[in-house]
Order: sequence, then C-alpha cells, then structure tokens
Amino acid sequence: MNVDGKHYRSIWVDPDDRNTIRIIDQRQLPYAFNIEELTTVDGMAQAIRDMHLRGAGLIGAAAGYGMYLAALEASSEPSFDRHLTKSAATLTATRPTAVNLTWAIKRQLAEIGKGRDAEEKTGIAFRTARAIADEDADHCQKIGQHGLGIIKGIGNRKDGDRINILTHCNAGWLAFVDHGTATAPIYAAFDSGLDVHVWVDETRPRNQGARLTAWELQQHGVPHTVITDNLGGHLMQQGLVDMVITGSDRTTYTGDVANKIGTYLKALAAKDNAIPFYVALPSSSFDWEARDGCRDIEIENRHGNEVRYMQGLCDNELKEVLLTPPSSPVVNYAFDVTPARLVTSLITERGICNADETDILRLFPEQRKGLLTEGD
Amino acid sequence: MNVDGKHYRSIWVDPDDRNTIRIIDQRQLPYAFNIEELTTVDGMAQAIRDMHLRGAGLIGAAAGYGMYLAALEASSEPSFDRHLTKSAATLTATRPTAVNLTWAIKRQLAEIGKGRDAEEKTGIAFRTARAIADEDADHCQKIGQHGLGIIKGIGNRKDGDRINILTHCNAGWLAFVDHGTATAPIYAAFDSGLDVHVWVDETRPRNQGARLTAWELQQHGVPHTVITDNLGGHLMQQGLVDMVITGSDRTTYTGDVANKIGTYLKALAAKDNAIPFYVALPSSSFDWEARDGCRDIEIENRHGNEVRYMQGLCDNELKEVLLTPPSSPVVNYAFDVTPARLVTSLITERGICNADETDILRLFPEQRKGLLTEGD
Repeated sequence: MNVDGKHYRSIWVDPDDRNTIRIIDQRQLPYAFNIEELTTVDGMAQAIRDMHLRGAGLIGAAAGYGMYLAALEASSEPSFDRHLTKSAATLTATRPTAVNLTWAIKRQLAEIGKGRDAEEKTGIAFRTARAIADEDADHCQKIGQHGLGIIKGIGNRKDGDRINILTHCNAGWLAFVDHGTATAPIYAAFDSGLDVHVWVDETRPRNQGARLTAWELQQHGVPHTVITDNLGGHLMQQGLVDMVITGSDRTTYTGDVANKIGTYLKALAAKDNAIPFYVALPSSSFDWEARDGCRDIEIENRHGNEVRYMQGLCDNELKEVLLTPPSSPVVNYAFDVTPARLVTSLITERGICNADETDILRLFPEQRKGLLTEGD
Repeated sequence: MNVDGKHYRSIWVDPDDRNTIRIIDQRQLPYAFNIEELTTVDGMAQAIRDMHLRGAGLIGAAAGYGMYLAALEASSEPSFDRHLTKSAATLTATRPTAVNLTWAIKRQLAEIGKGRDAEEKTGIAFRTARAIADEDADHCQKIGQHGLGIIKGIGNRKDGDRINILTHCNAGWLAFVDHGTATAPIYAAFDSGLDVHVWVDETRPRNQGARLTAWELQQHGVPHTVITDNLGGHLMQQGLVDMVITGSDRTTYTGDVANKIGTYLKALAAKDNAIPFYVALPSSSFDWEARDGCRDIEIENRHGNEVRYMQGLCDNELKEVLLTPPSSPVVNYAFDVTPARLVTSLITERGICNADETDILRLFPEQRKGLLTEGD
C-alpha cells in the first residue's frame, strides 16, 4: 500500500541490485520510516529474530528471501548444499513458533533440491522467494475483494453514510507482503471510493494498533481514529460501529479464532450489539488438527516487561516508561480464543464462509480426507 | 488501609496541628509516597483541581476540609460569611462535574450557617468536615462487610482454594477516605484470612489500576497481578476468575452502571462465562433521576492526549512517551454503561440488592416518593 503517496510492499528486491533485499524496519514506526538493506542470510535472520519485521505472512516471505540470500552466498562456497542446510537451521531458529517460517524454508529446500548446479539452484531460490511473496500478496488481495462485497453491502444499507469499522491489533500490510488481511477489505473499500472510517484499538501491551495500523492507514489516507482497547464496547452501544474485522493467528477447522489478546472481548461486544464480527485470514492460518480453540490452542505467555513498560517517543528518542509498582507481579498471555459462535463469517482468499466445520470444508474440500483419516 | 505496615486514610487532620490537613499526593504513585500539607483553601482547591487527589468520596471529603480551612482563614477576616461564600465558589469550580464536591460544600454551608459567631462556625466546620470523612469511611467499611459475605460464599464453594477476583480502575481507598468500594470486600476478606488474589486491569488511558490499585494492594499485602485491559476475557475463559467487582461513578435507579471505560467489556465476559459481576457503591452514587443508563447518562469526552501519551517512570523521572502517529486522531470517552442485565448484584452500605428498580427501592424506600412524584 502507499507510504507518502508511493506504493510499497513490506519486503522487496532492490530493483537495481538483485542481490539486495529491502525491508521496512518496523521498530521505529510510526515515528520514523527507515528502509533496511539485507544482503546476507545472517542479516535476514537478525531482522526476523529482533523483529525489524513481524507478522505471519511477512515472516514467511522474509524466510523465502533469506534462503535466496543463502543460495547467493553458497554460490561462492565449495559446498552449496551444506551452506543451505546450515542457513535453513539459522533462519528456523529465529522465531521457533512461526508456522510460515518453517513452511517457507521447507518449500525453498524442496524446490532448490530440483536444481542441477549452484547457478540453477540460485535461480530457483530467487523465483521461489518471489513466488512466496507474490502468493502472499495475491491471497491478501483476494481477501480484500471478498471483504469489499461485505463493506459495500453495509454501505448500501447506510445509504451513503460513513461506514465505521473497528479493528484490533495489526493484521495490516506490514504483517504481510501487501494489503494485509483485516485491512485488505478496508483498503479495497477506500480505494473504490467508499466512505470508510476505522476505529483502531491501540492493542496493549505491544500497541501494534496505535503504532502500526494507525500508521498504515494514515499513510494510505484512510480516515481513522486511535482508541484505547477499553473503548470499543461503548462505541458499539452508541451505534458508532458498523462492523468489526480482525485477523487471526490460528483458526481451528471448526471456526474458533485465536488472535491477539482482547479480540474475544470485542467479539462479545459485537454480539451484544448485533454488529457483524468478521475474521480475515489466509488458508495458511487454519489449523486442520485443532477442534476446540480454547482447549487445543496453546497460548504464548510472553515476558512481563511488555506489561510493566510502555515504549514510545520522548524527546525524539524511543524510550520505555515504567507503568506499575516495580514489585507487582504481571502476566502477559499474548492471544485469546474467540469461539466460533461469536464469528459472523471468515473471509479467506477462496471466499467467505461461516465459522463452522461444514462451511469451512466446503471452501477447502481437500482437507476433508485428512480430518476423516484421523477419525474423531 | 496500610502503607508499609502503617494505617493511613487518604486525607486526615494533622494530629499535632488541627489547622493542617494532610493528603497523599497521588500524582507520584506508585513511584513515590509523598504526603502534602494543606493549610489554605486555595491550596486545597489546587490539590483538587490538579488531581493531587481524586475519586468521588475523597473529593467530597477534601471539599469538606477545604471549607473548614476557609472558616479558619475567615476567622481573621472582617467578613466571615463573605470569605466562606467566595471559598465555596472557588472549591466548586475545581471539578465542576464531581457530584460529591458540591454536595459536601452545600452541607458545610448549611451547617456553618447554624453557628452564631466565627468561633462557633469554625467549630461546626471542623466537626462537619470530620463527619463527612468518617461517614465516607463508614459507608465503605459497611460495603466491605456486606461484600465479605459474598467472597466467603465463593471461598466455601472452592473449599479453601484461592479466590480470584478481577477489578477494573481504582475504586480503592485512595478514591475514598478508607477501604474503598470495590476493594472494601477484598480488604475485608484478606484481613479475615481468606486466600484472595486480585487481577488488576491496568485501565487505560490513565492507568489507575496499574498505578493506584496495584500500589494499594501491594502496600496492604494483598496478592495481586497487574494485567492489560485486554486479558480479562481470556482469564475468565480459562476458569481463572471467580468474581468481578468494580465501583461505579453513577448508577441509575434501574441498575444501569456507569463506570470507567472498559467495565462493560468485562461484564460481557463475566456473563459469557457465568462469573458473577458485582458493583460496589455508596448510596451517594445512585442517580435517582436517570432511568436508562445508555440514554440518560452523559459520558465525559476527555482530552485526546491521555490516549496519545503514556506517563510512567523513566530514569527516575515521571515522563510521557508518545504512542501514536502524531497526526492520527484519537477519541477518549472516560466511562461506559454496563446494562443492569449484566450486573449480578449491587453492594451498598445498606446491603446487597439486585440491579433492578424494585430491589434498589427496597433498600432505599425513601427514594420512592421522589420517583412517583416525577411520574413516568
């Protein structure tokens, strides 16, 4: 999407130097827009590990390009395959729980294995990395088109009045290669001239909403308002929210949605006020083995300092301030599970479905066999 | 309650100098515990206006003592009554929407008016100020005893297992003269040896939970954990919350509860998980004219910088960090309304009642006439 009027992806190959990968360093956002150049697999590993970039789709794309950088390095080494294996391990270790990371690396290793020599293998690595990134952007773009229909429907019912959409966390283009998931229908609606306005939950403790989603929307010109996570329920009661849309870190094949902590509270408020609650996700975010979200999905318990301290800009520097009594205990679960009964629909690259097993498998019939084989 | 093992109220008369009122300067909490001495009505007005102290009950008590300080000053002035009238206006202007402020000032003016000379009037002002403070502490203490029965009941059902209580914002003793409202049953339970643990919502944007409630509980020795406002729903789903208890800024005579923004979301989550949701309030927080909370209670829209910036400790100084893109709009409604249907019971100084008109009027029968006269 656009930054200061110019189109960007979150990761791309330098147009003047195919050996250089460029990313937006997200650590300084929204205070500074810095582009980082990566030319080594170690540099890419560090960028993933230290969260210069984050987000399911983008991590997958970065791993794909990381393996391409590994192939470039290996071309000048005596043992091509050994360097690739080592690089795969380095990249895999950066974010051990990121599903897209291992998926992209395995795909690269399988494809590269088909090449006959270093030159051919490096060419394959480049094309595979580009394919991973393009597919991610393509899936998000399709999610946007499917979701656009929903927003148009609301717009028709509102007879041209502004359409208010609430979102939580950052399921934006910064978390993918382009468009994002939750934001894709919003960008599609805005770009097609609909009068949309977004309520952006700040999303404590890491404030991905206030820092990343707000920045994205502002740069693309989409009207928006940043709110505390506490405010959404009141806005819904007052008739100021027409729909809620979030992303998902993992969704069971029965439609339970694991997403950033606090999502469940917004889904409850949407239900209580008869406001539709949508979840936008690429098919790669389905967990075809998890039946009961609250029971089967393990929730990451992150470091308490994310709760104790808040990072922001002070005197033109990024600083952290202490928010709690220093000796008060804290706890920091990163995700919660929104039960399928609170989800109006899922928006995937293949289309829209109900959040239930039957309708999900209608869109993804190839998953039926696996589920049947396992028995239940 | 206790600070570092010693009992404090949030406001008190200096035991060695009846002309000096002492308060805890809450602006530095939880990082520093500073006691401020006030000897003039202007000093008290500034302390209220600049929020050295805050909270419904405490503001009322402070206004009461402020009028006593005014009487002390007036004793040495030619026109006693003129100075008192002027001081009443000064104090009233500090927090125009605080109901307890005007109530305490009117009570003082009526009582002082009964005195024959400056000396007698000053004596009345002292006794009235003390009575206002004592009644506030007494009401909170009674709320604690009524709520204690509820917590004991949960403890019995849990057979001695730890009782987990979630609270939002600060309805603690720092907001009143002692005990607090939501915290009163918790302190009573802890002091009587029950194994209680409190989940403390940080309560963005002003973080009264992370700063004040956490500090209170820590100083009194009550086990607690600070959490982001997003976390409570997940904890309830996981069976880690046995009851929710909050205060109230205003409650309709039909049981709709206006309280700090985000309370409604916790009430929804409690309902969804069959967890009891209690509201503790003194009778002074009932609005006998408001029937429909969502329609009749005006919600304060506070300055956006409370959302844009977060205050905390950095390098041993209180600093503010910017959290959002500087040009992103924000909105900052301070309260929301929890409909009566989500409230298990109200806990008042007169006892416990259902959140409905019939049961509220059973506890407060003297309000029946006013409601009937107005017609409806």
